[in-house]
Formats: sequence, structure tokens, C-alpha cells
Amino acid sequence: MTLKEKIMNIKAFAFDVDGVMTDGGILATDDGGLYRIFDAKDCFGLRMAKMHGYILAVISGGHADGIRHRAVMCGVEPENVFLSSMAKIEDFNTFINKYGLKPEEVLFCGDDLPDIPPMLACGIGACPSDAAADVLAIADYVSPCPGGRGFVRQIVEMVMKARGDWALDVEQYTNSYKY
Amino acid sequence: MTLKEKIMNIKAFAFDVDGVMTDGGILATDDGGLYRIFDAKDCFGLRMAKMHGYILAVISGGHADGIRHRAVMCGVEPENVFLSSMAKIEDFNTFINKYGLKPEEVLFCGDDLPDIPPMLACGIGACPSDAAADVLAIADYVSPCPGGRGFVRQIVEMVMKARGDWALDVEQYTNSYKY
Amino acid sequence: MTLKEKIMNIKAFAFDVDGVMTDGGILATDDGGLYRIFDAKDCFGLRMAKMHGYILAVISGGHADGIRHRAVMCGVEPENVFLSSMAKIEDFNTFINKYGLKPEEVLFCGDDLPDIPPMLACGIGACPSDAAADVLAIADYVSPCPGGRGFVRQIVEMVMKARGDWALDVEQYTNSYKY
Amino acid sequence: MTLKEKIMNIKAFAFDVDGVMTDGGILATDDGGLYRIFDAKDCFGLRMAKMHGYILAVISGGHADGIRHRAVMCGVEPENVFLSSMAKIEDFNTFINKYGLKPEEVLFCGDDLPDIPPMLACGIGACPSDAAADVLAIADYVSPCPGGRGFVRQIVEMVMKARGDWALDVEQYTNSYKY
Repeated sequence: MTLKEKIMNIKAFAFDVDGVMTDGGILATDDGGLYRIFDAKDCFGLRMAKMHGYILAVISGGHADGIRHRAVMCGVEPENVFLSSMAKIEDFNTFINKYGLKPEEVLFCGDDLPDIPPMLACGIGACPSDAAADVLAIADYVSPCPGGRGFVRQIVEMVMKARGDWALDVEQYTNSYKY
Repeated sequence: MTLKEKIMNIKAFAFDVDGVMTDGGILATDDGGLYRIFDAKDCFGLRMAKMHGYILAVISGGHADGIRHRAVMCGVEPENVFLSSMAKIEDFNTFINKYGLKPEEVLFCGDDLPDIPPMLACGIGACPSDAAADVLAIADYVSPCPGGRGFVRQIVEMVMKARGDWALDVEQYTNSYKY
Repeated sequence: MTLKEKIMNIKAFAFDVDGVMTDGGILATDDGGLYRIFDAKDCFGLRMAKMHGYILAVISGGHADGIRHRAVMCGVEPENVFLSSMAKIEDFNTFINKYGLKPEEVLFCGDDLPDIPPMLACGIGACPSDAAADVLAIADYVSPCPGGRGFVRQIVEMVMKARGDWALDVEQYTNSYKY
Repeated sequence: MTLKEKIMNIKAFAFDVDGVMTDGGILATDDGGLYRIFDAKDCFGLRMAKMHGYILAVISGGHADGIRHRAVMCGVEPENVFLSSMAKIEDFNTFINKYGLKPEEVLFCGDDLPDIPPMLACGIGACPSDAAADVLAIADYVSPCPGGRGFVRQIVEMVMKARGDWALDVEQYTNSYKY
């Protein structure tokens, strides 16, 4: 099955956070805070996906509230934000079972070893150009963009354009939640 | 009409924020804070424009107070900072009508789909080198510089030098508000 | 002795922080806070090393609590985090004596002049591609990766793969402390 | 006079901050905070200069306390940190007169138009590779390194190596103030 054919099955996106929605950098404050830098164009791409009916999830080993806040702002339902996820395949299965999704209907984006099981289980396992060597070796699709610097947007835009639904309805956008 | 001829009409600059005045990165703190990294040379360029009589506006989908603080520090009048702007063409029209500006007298800088309507309506729609594909396709001018890394300064300096008013009056600068 | 032969002796890793576990950037807040940006893939690599029995240490001239928090999260025992370390060779010796390690069993990662004494004393003195000129000149191994952008992960993964123990036991990982 | 000959006169370094000691990025928080990211290797280079008797100054248009804290940590005397400096030539003259320095004994590092007057008045006006066009045009020395990414360290190391005093006395360093 070609990538294009696989894309035609996709109804949902699931994302690791560090190195995927960010460049992997984590700002450590003296009181134990761990802050990430997310990308505005990634966020707009995710909101476009949400407006066109795609289901979104975030599955991260991290636990910071900043991840949850940002994910929700990008259109991810709060109950689809899985934090402190160590065995990611379990949270992946919880997610798809909740929505009755088949694994091949999900595109999973990961960049490091804990992401490999869901990347192998889903329809399209995608990774950024700067993913770990073991992840680059098993990915269905390697993006030309590094994590946090265009990767998420490139994936979402590629899938939506291939499926013919990358279009902004300004009125719908205006009436969506503010961010 | 050539770019040079269009530049001769410009009396005002309006800017999106994320990906234009920044590289698109947004630092998400655990208490919901969203902080941006702005560029010092961009800020100096905007203050130069202000000192030479250009009218400045910021039109952003974001809502953080940090945007307002920074915009004002760069010479934007507080009432010309439009936040939570979803239908940007409306805020663009509010801005130009307030000052009696014709659309062709405004240069608008954007990088993503919500910026396209004002970019098409204004005199010069400019974008950074790393703008979204749909924006690169409709821009009147694509800068060699990416957002947050030289773009705003390059645009302002290009326009002011073409019009012959890129010069620092140290005394005027010294007597301007501190920053 | 070849690098490969030296690698076969390695039982412990010791790291400088600024420019090694980070790109050297230090965010200075107005109340004197000094925050660093660490890398998620570095952290995962260090946790892999910890799970496979390598002993880890951090020896930094800095003193911020954020360093300690982050180091512990990466698998470094709290008592092996040496801060405000000016004469690093002394802390290096304290570390190896505590565990009965021979110097040749330790790989030390540094990037600037204070790191040179332990780099010369240990088994493998490694540095990032953007280390200070004096450090590049004496390093046993110069990584193709800059500090904070792949260096630590590349070193740990290279050593562990050469020794045949780069493998993720998902169950063990799941039962390790959350981060 | 060649650059090498000019270097032989240098007894003091003065630095702009944004775009010189940083990459120009300013993190704007919602409560008006403006935080900069400084570089660890720059800091070590400045401490080396301080230990070898060079006089250091910082002359910035910014006003954040973070600048003062960081400058002092790098070896700049608190009274030589000039903030909110708009007419920089005045603060430059205050600095050199206080120490009885001749202008040709000072190397000034700047990157934007307000830095031009002291750059022209001093012995060596140096700028980073990404300085404003007007500054690149008048600099005595253009570094191969951009601001905040090696520039300050490269300048200090170049001058000190040319003068034969780039050497670390570990004992002196150990007994210097902690950072």
C-alpha cells in the first residue's frame, strides 16, 4: 500500500510531544518547572484538522500542565491528552478504542524509542528528520522537517491536502474558541 | 506597479505576531502562560519607523499581555494592538479607517492562512521566508529572512531606505521613551 | 588503544552542563534566576544508561537548582550532582573514589577550559563539535553534534551500542520513576 | 595600523547586550518581564579577561535587572553596567574617563545603530556577523560568529591570545567568586 493510499484511511492524529511538537528542548526552572516551546504554525495546522473533523490525541512521557494547556489550545480534547505515558501502546489503544478507530486510521508521530510500539501499530508512523536512529529506521514516513520546526504542520498539511480538505472557513475559525 | 512604486505609497505597517515578530515559538508555562521571544533589532527598526512618522499596528490571534507590552515598547500605540483577532480583515479595516489610510498605504506582514485576507487587501503583503505554503503563494514580497530572525527589520529597513528616511537622530532617540 | 577498546572499559559517564547538556544558553531572569534548556533525547539516553547499570555524574560550575532537578530526572543520583565546581578534577576524583572506579572506566564530557583536567584524567574525554578551541585540541573524541543538540545522546548511544546494551525493556522503563 | 597592532593597545572591553551578548531574542512575559539568554562560553571568556586585568563594561539600551545580574556574574563591576543607555557615547566617555583609559585602549562590541558612535570613537569597533547593515559597514572588525552564538568569546579569546595571556590559572579561578 502506498503512502497516498494509507493517507486516505487517516481519521485521527496522535502525537508525542518532546522532539515532535517541540524541538526537544525543556526549560528547567529552579522550582522544578519544565516548560516547552511549541510552534504557532503547528497549532494552526492542528486547529484546521480539528475543524475538519479529525480526532487528535497527545501521548507524552512528560507530565507538565503546560503540555495539557497547549494541547487543548491546539484542538486536542482534554481527555485525549495522555501524560506520564510510559507504555505508550496502552494509551494508544485506549484512545483508538474510545473512538472505535481502527489502528490503520491513525497517524502517530514520534521521535524516540518509547514511540516505536504505537508507530508500528498504527496506519502511518511518522517521524521528524531529527528523530532517534532507531525511529528513523522503522518509520513509514520521515518528514523533511525537524521536530518543533515545521514537522507537525507538514504532516497535518500533507494529509489534509492529499484528502482535499485543507481549506480555511474564516467564519468557522472566527467562531471557534479563542486562543 | 513595481515593488519600488508600491513602497512609495506606504505610510503604515501592520504585523501579525507569531512567525512574523517571532520565530513562531511559544513558551507554555504550567500556569497557562504563553511567552514569546521577540527580536531586539526588529524593535529598533520599529522605533525608527515610529520616529519617522509611520503608523504601526499589531494584529494577532494571540491574547497574551506580553504581546501588548512588547508591541508598545516597539512604538505601537496601545490602541493599535489588536489581540484575539480571528477575522483579521475586520481589525485591519478598523485600523486603516481610524487613520484615514487607504489600503495601498499599508504594508501587512503575515505568515499563515488567517493573514491572507489583509495581505490581499493592503498595498504590500509581505511574508517571511518560512511562511506557510499558501502565504508564500500569494505574497507580494517574500523576505529572504525567516520570522523572528530578521524579517521585520529587513522589511522596515528596506521600505525606509527606499524612501530615504532611514537615519538615526541620536538626540530624538535619546529623548524618546526608554525601553 | 583504539576508541573502540577504550569504550569497552567504560562503566560511568560524567558530564559538564553548560555547552554539554545544553547549547550554552542561560536564561537570566530579573530576580537572578538562571534557567537552562535541556534536551529530551539526551534525557532518554541517560535513563537508558542508568537502566543498564552505568553510573552517572554531573559536574558543573553552575549552582542553579534547575540543574539538580534535571540531572536527577535523567537518572543521576542526587549525591552525584556536583554544583559550583571550580576545580573539577577534585569532584571527579571524589566521584570515582566513591564508586571504586578507575579513571579509565569513566567517559567525561566537557566543552570549556575548566573541563580539561578531568578530560585528560579519564578514559575518554569527549566534547561537542562546538567546544572551545583548547578543548577540541585535547579531546579523545570530538562528536559531530553540538552541545545541547544531540551531543549527550550521541555519546551515550555510541558507547552503549558498541557494548551491545542499547535496548529498551519497555516493562522496566514503565516501572522506572516517572518524569 | 593593523588589527594586530590595535589589539596590542587594548586594556578594556565594552559590550552592548542585545545581539552582542545575546542573539537578540528577548522573552516577553505577561507581567512585563524581559528576559535574555546569555552564553556560558562568553561568560567564561569574560571571567578570563577579568582575571588577567582587563576592565569590562556593559552599555545597553535595555533596563532589565537580569542584564545587571548576568554582567556581574561575568566579571563586570556593578558600576560599569550602564542600562537604559540611549546616547551610548556619553556612557562610553564616562566609563573611560573613570579609569583614565584612552579611547584606543578600548574594544567596543555593538550590532545596531546606537552602537555606532562608540564603535567609531574606540580603538577597535567589533561586531557580530549578523549585525545591522550600517554597523557591518563601519566596523573595524567583523567576527565570523553571530551575536550570542560565539561572538563575545571569539573576540575576547582573539585579543587575549594575540597578547599572550589566554591561560587558565585553576587555583585563581577556584578562588574567584562562584557563579
